[in-house]
Amino acid sequence: MFIEYDIIVVGAGHAGCEAAYAAAQMGSKVLLATMNMNTIAQMSCNPAMGGVAKGQIVREIDALGGMSGIVSDRSMIQFRMLNKSKGAAMWSPRSQNDRMLFSNEWRMALENTPNVDFWQEMITGIIVEQNRVIGVETSLGLQIKAKSVILTNGTFLNGLIHIGEKQFGGGRTGERAAKGLTEQLVQLGFESGRMKTGTPPRVDGRSLDYTKMEEQAGDLKPGKFSYTNTPRLTKQRSCYITYTNRSVHEILETGFDKSPMFAGRIKGIGPRYCPSIEDKINRFAERERHQIFVEPEGWNTVEIYVNGFSTSLPENIQYEALTRIPGFEQVKMFRPGYAIEYDYFPPTQLKLTLETKVIDHLYFAGQINGTTGYEEAACQGLMAGINAHQKINELEALVLKRSEAYIGVLIDDLINKGTEEPYRMFTSRAEFRILLRQDNADVRLTETGHKIGLASDERLDKVMDKKNETARLLNDLKHKKVTPTQINESLTNLQTATIKEKLAVEKLLKRPEIDIQNLTSIDPSLADYLHGFEEEVLQQAEILIKYDNYIEKEKQLVKKIEGLEDYKIKPGFDYSLLTSLSAEAREKLTRIQPETLGQAARISGVSPADISIILVYLGK
Amino acid sequence: MFIEYDIIVVGAGHAGCEAAYAAAQMGSKVLLATMNMNTIAQMSCNPAMGGVAKGQIVREIDALGGMSGIVSDRSMIQFRMLNKSKGAAMWSPRSQNDRMLFSNEWRMALENTPNVDFWQEMITGIIVEQNRVIGVETSLGLQIKAKSVILTNGTFLNGLIHIGEKQFGGGRTGERAAKGLTEQLVQLGFESGRMKTGTPPRVDGRSLDYTKMEEQAGDLKPGKFSYTNTPRLTKQRSCYITYTNRSVHEILETGFDKSPMFAGRIKGIGPRYCPSIEDKINRFAERERHQIFVEPEGWNTVEIYVNGFSTSLPENIQYEALTRIPGFEQVKMFRPGYAIEYDYFPPTQLKLTLETKVIDHLYFAGQINGTTGYEEAACQGLMAGINAHQKINELEALVLKRSEAYIGVLIDDLINKGTEEPYRMFTSRAEFRILLRQDNADVRLTETGHKIGLASDERLDKVMDKKNETARLLNDLKHKKVTPTQINESLTNLQTATIKEKLAVEKLLKRPEIDIQNLTSIDPSLADYLHGFEEEVLQQAEILIKYDNYIEKEKQLVKKIEGLEDYKIKPGFDYSLLTSLSAEAREKLTRIQPETLGQAARISGVSPADISIILVYLGK
Repeated sequence: MFIEYDIIVVGAGHAGCEAAYAAAQMGSKVLLATMNMNTIAQMSCNPAMGGVAKGQIVREIDALGGMSGIVSDRSMIQFRMLNKSKGAAMWSPRSQNDRMLFSNEWRMALENTPNVDFWQEMITGIIVEQNRVIGVETSLGLQIKAKSVILTNGTFLNGLIHIGEKQFGGGRTGERAAKGLTEQLVQLGFESGRMKTGTPPRVDGRSLDYTKMEEQAGDLKPGKFSYTNTPRLTKQRSCYITYTNRSVHEILETGFDKSPMFAGRIKGIGPRYCPSIEDKINRFAERERHQIFVEPEGWNTVEIYVNGFSTSLPENIQYEALTRIPGFEQVKMFRPGYAIEYDYFPPTQLKLTLETKVIDHLYFAGQINGTTGYEEAACQGLMAGINAHQKINELEALVLKRSEAYIGVLIDDLINKGTEEPYRMFTSRAEFRILLRQDNADVRLTETGHKIGLASDERLDKVMDKKNETARLLNDLKHKKVTPTQINESLTNLQTATIKEKLAVEKLLKRPEIDIQNLTSIDPSLADYLHGFEEEVLQQAEILIKYDNYIEKEKQLVKKIEGLEDYKIKPGFDYSLLTSLSAEAREKLTRIQPETLGQAARISGVSPADISIILVYLGK
Repeated sequence: MFIEYDIIVVGAGHAGCEAAYAAAQMGSKVLLATMNMNTIAQMSCNPAMGGVAKGQIVREIDALGGMSGIVSDRSMIQFRMLNKSKGAAMWSPRSQNDRMLFSNEWRMALENTPNVDFWQEMITGIIVEQNRVIGVETSLGLQIKAKSVILTNGTFLNGLIHIGEKQFGGGRTGERAAKGLTEQLVQLGFESGRMKTGTPPRVDGRSLDYTKMEEQAGDLKPGKFSYTNTPRLTKQRSCYITYTNRSVHEILETGFDKSPMFAGRIKGIGPRYCPSIEDKINRFAERERHQIFVEPEGWNTVEIYVNGFSTSLPENIQYEALTRIPGFEQVKMFRPGYAIEYDYFPPTQLKLTLETKVIDHLYFAGQINGTTGYEEAACQGLMAGINAHQKINELEALVLKRSEAYIGVLIDDLINKGTEEPYRMFTSRAEFRILLRQDNADVRLTETGHKIGLASDERLDKVMDKKNETARLLNDLKHKKVTPTQINESLTNLQTATIKEKLAVEKLLKRPEIDIQNLTSIDPSLADYLHGFEEEVLQQAEILIKYDNYIEKEKQLVKKIEGLEDYKIKPGFDYSLLTSLSAEAREKLTRIQPETLGQAARISGVSPADISIILVYLGK
């Protein structure tokens, strides 16, 4: 009935879709098994992709040849480049998406991938022979054989939904939970745990008064995620901002005795940086208000996502509290917010390829590994798909370094430090974040993606052009000079110091007051020259010039850190000498006594900063 | 938390959507409660609307001001007018639809209806006070008040899915069943039963070899359902026809011992006229082959619906059998076929308004009443929505007569005869089917729809124009005459008799060899005149002229039948005198001894033909 597949992917969320697409694109015969083909690639929580650090991940996925960027671009209803007020190294792309379009685009992308087959049924077990997975078992009792299996079960494994004092099984509201897998994996020797996440109520946009809120429009010149030629938005939908207040908080507090979290009915740990509204007012009692983002769920639907108001309080409390938010006085709810508990498997049980240590050829990706977020899930799926393919073809594994990609940081963190709460990516987790920018993900990763057979020739050509052109521009800017008579008047207008003698354009560009746009107004011949370059080449060159020092410093650090593994620490080293170490790091280092700095760096609670301190000390 | 609604509609399938839309459009405050807002208006079975008798229902819904026709038109991927080889009175429109578009269009239509609110949760009970429903209770324990409640639970009430020897709860595969309602209704005094339906496997269109099948393209000049100005298709997708064979049947037979139907595990009765493939080969063992329609599920998806292959045999048997069908040799299955058992409530417990007899202001519509089919469900939802609105506003109920609409036939059949197997509409159920044509549903019903405040002014204007223009044309055709010299050459070319003297065009048009198109080629001045009319006016006039005798006869019969109620039958009447009565009718009439012909007509098993026989006899 089934061929023997190369890879079976269980689950068709962000992780599962990327895994299936990547492996199939590379040439594996893939079966994507899902409980319901009508709900492929659902955005279970907010209708948005990207954001700080997460936007970089989407671009990295795209640079490697994955689909999340393309699907996001095609279903986008608004685009904003976050952190525009900060340096270009901090810029982060973020989109609002049409929930239905997003799901349809993913499904169409997968249907158009020749090596992807589909099977709609619950997968209740894996088949293992001599510590190697050789297939899966379905709820109907079917056995489907494969060389490799990737589990991306999201919140479905024994999913338990909480609203106030009520609980019911389900992977999302209105959907069923997945049964059987956890129990089998535990029998096979896996350790499992419980985590918790939550989602806010959805409301009827027709019942809101937007005049009482602040409009947040998209960028005037909207960008996008993919480096390919996906279309750019020509119209956008706005979001709106409003705030909770004392009255909202007081009503929420009346439900605290019925809160499944506060009452201890929820045992799983929730995402620290995406807390429920009750958590926020409980932990930060002094705060008068919390921000609420009012996000449309699509181009045409009236359904609204109330970002910032995740809650599992009783639905009548949710409603009453909502009505006290400016603009929400007449609110009509469509669906209440809820919390969901689900099984995860501490990711320290995985190798850096996302293959499990216990069972060969079995991979885990996404929330099953204790992460939170679409982007975090998608990139794990991509890497699991790639590595499952590589391994069955006896090809070299693809492990991205922390200095190469946020994806590398994420997986390295998971595998070496584990996580006891839903893991979300932040720029602060990346010690080389000046290197890991949204503008250079293609430069960093597309050659790799192409080498493994995932990124297309066109993608590679495009990156090569960008690299060559950037190099040519950088070289020219180093040699092109401007004279005082030519530009001093312009410089005065720009409120920056005049020059006294000829100066290389590159030098001028290092000044914070001057960007590449200014250059074109300073000197017509320079303008003509610069117009010969693509905008992203200009931006790339500008960033490389302006951040030259930081970039160089980080590159040096990378070199050092890469030598960490060879860096032996004397047994019995006295960490109390290093007073600037964090208390947690000192305690753990003293107890564990790592043999190398590399090992030290991978201890949970030992931060990159701590490593730098030891490094500096040892380096002396 | 909720306002007190006028009407709560439980379930958002074809029945629920029409009910919510109609009542809201007429001015009621409506809450549409659904288990999952992402699955509103799913086409659970085949991706098609209309067909023989069913297409007429869609046009009737449209004529009254409902939405099914418009949604179907907007999501159509192919249109065919069935029975074109038969007389125009038998023509039946049918469309293939894009499953996702159909669902999205319905959701957008409802979202854009100001009086419709949404609530996503399972409804587990109704609230009753003094034999009147006053609201519903949700799975969270919420109480939502309303003046009226319409239950449209489809196959979800205690839904139990069967595939081979496996069974699991669910309203559709991958979705949950609805619990609680049946038990409560039974406690309230309702009688419930079990029915069964089934659906075929879905397969991967990329794995089929269409060169081994017959292509079935859409009509060259595609029509549509709605009388409004919905767009007409400019491109279409084809379906394909193939056949089972002995080898397919033999494989299916090997699974009979595991068939939930044959083994008696399924207790509900299935739709006689939509049997499973195992049923077909079991009942018609002599047939060498059965037709299979290969229907695409949308514009872009590769998913295919295998119409004619509904089955609940074990999935490996389904697969093996499929592979023996020409064109399916390399088939890949996406989802297995299955049977589903669910609770229904014998519809004799309803009034002609679809309100229940037991509980005031409680209405049932759709499969809960023992029907099968999207169109049958949709029209019940529409009528329940209309009548719930009318009753709470103390307005006259809308009950369509059997001579007015297929909808009238359907509801009259259900209420008076009940049904012990899933009830499907056929033209044969309508004794006045020459009157109930697809071309005149607007003429029959739009005035009514407008009077109750559902059909718009524009709709009414359009129908009035059509009626007036048709009348003008009919009158003209009666008086316009053609002469032998003018047309005899043309008549000879058309292989019809020449004329000897002046003849009214109307008379000419009664000839089977001549249609209104021919007329334009016969005489240039006539052509000019006719081109001044809309095509549907021409068609209307043509049908009225050609079928004049039949139409008149039926109209006379209607008058007679409408007097049936006054038609007393002598007590002790000897039905054995009427030898042409069916055995069943004779038996039941003798036993029940109805007092009037009206009552006789409403006895289950007594057909319109039987009534005509009695009528003829008594009329003598």
